[in-house]
Amino acid sequence: MFDTVGTSSILDPLDAWGRLRSRGVGRLAVSDNGNPDIFPINYLASADQILIRTAPGTKLTKLMLNESVALETDHYDAEAAWSVVVKGTARHLTDEESIRAARESPLWSWMPRSTDAFVVITPTEVTGRTFAGH
Amino acid sequence: MFDTVGTSSILDPLDAWGRLRSRGVGRLAVSDNGNPDIFPINYLASADQILIRTAPGTKLTKLMLNESVALETDHYDAEAAWSVVVKGTARHLTDEESIRAARESPLWSWMPRSTDAFVVITPTEVTGRTFAGH
Repeated sequence: MFDTVGTSSILDPLDAWGRLRSRGVGRLAVSDNGNPDIFPINYLASADQILIRTAPGTKLTKLMLNESVALETDHYDAEAAWSVVVKGTARHLTDEESIRAARESPLWSWMPRSTDAFVVITPTEVTGRTFAGH
Repeated sequence: MFDTVGTSSILDPLDAWGRLRSRGVGRLAVSDNGNPDIFPINYLASADQILIRTAPGTKLTKLMLNESVALETDHYDAEAAWSVVVKGTARHLTDEESIRAARESPLWSWMPRSTDAFVVITPTEVTGRTFAGH
């Protein structure tokens, strides 16, 4: 699948963004006192940012803030695979208007909870690769 | 899918190991000068360690070594999801016998390359969670 040894090619940035937006499940890598940690997450990628919903007070919430983060999403089948990685910074949404908009976004409508916190990742780098099948 | 807000439960460690061994695709989180980075990888989990093949001289190879790593694998469908996270340390295989065994392992038999390097992750912690469907 993700053959880091064999043939792979770099995606055009617009293509990488498009694939990122086409998916809603990824994994978020964060730093826990310098040690990597990784969490599966649901996300919603819009034009220039990525929205994540989380429960306040969880380990993920703590690790995500004031830290660089990396988010990966991918897709693979028997013939080919691709992966997009976003690097960026995370911040809590704190203003009412943004929180309301996040609550009404398509990602979260199926399970609204009044206590949820929303975190926005602002990308500094989005890269994608395709991997040849075998 | 990975509803970090809703119901989730912790997997028994043996169950987590079993699920880890049942999969061969994951994502590896590493630290790049304190900043998280993440790579999709193929792996082979055996009784007590995880084998990864990589090309010498790549960024992943450099970041993986002398560092803590975290590897995640998961599975989800419309009804439920689970995720297993391994934390551990990575080291290059350097002795002939181990390299030969790695080369003959089922993970790599479909695309042998004489220049591949093998990295073994020795887990210090394996945790798993299930997530309720919705």
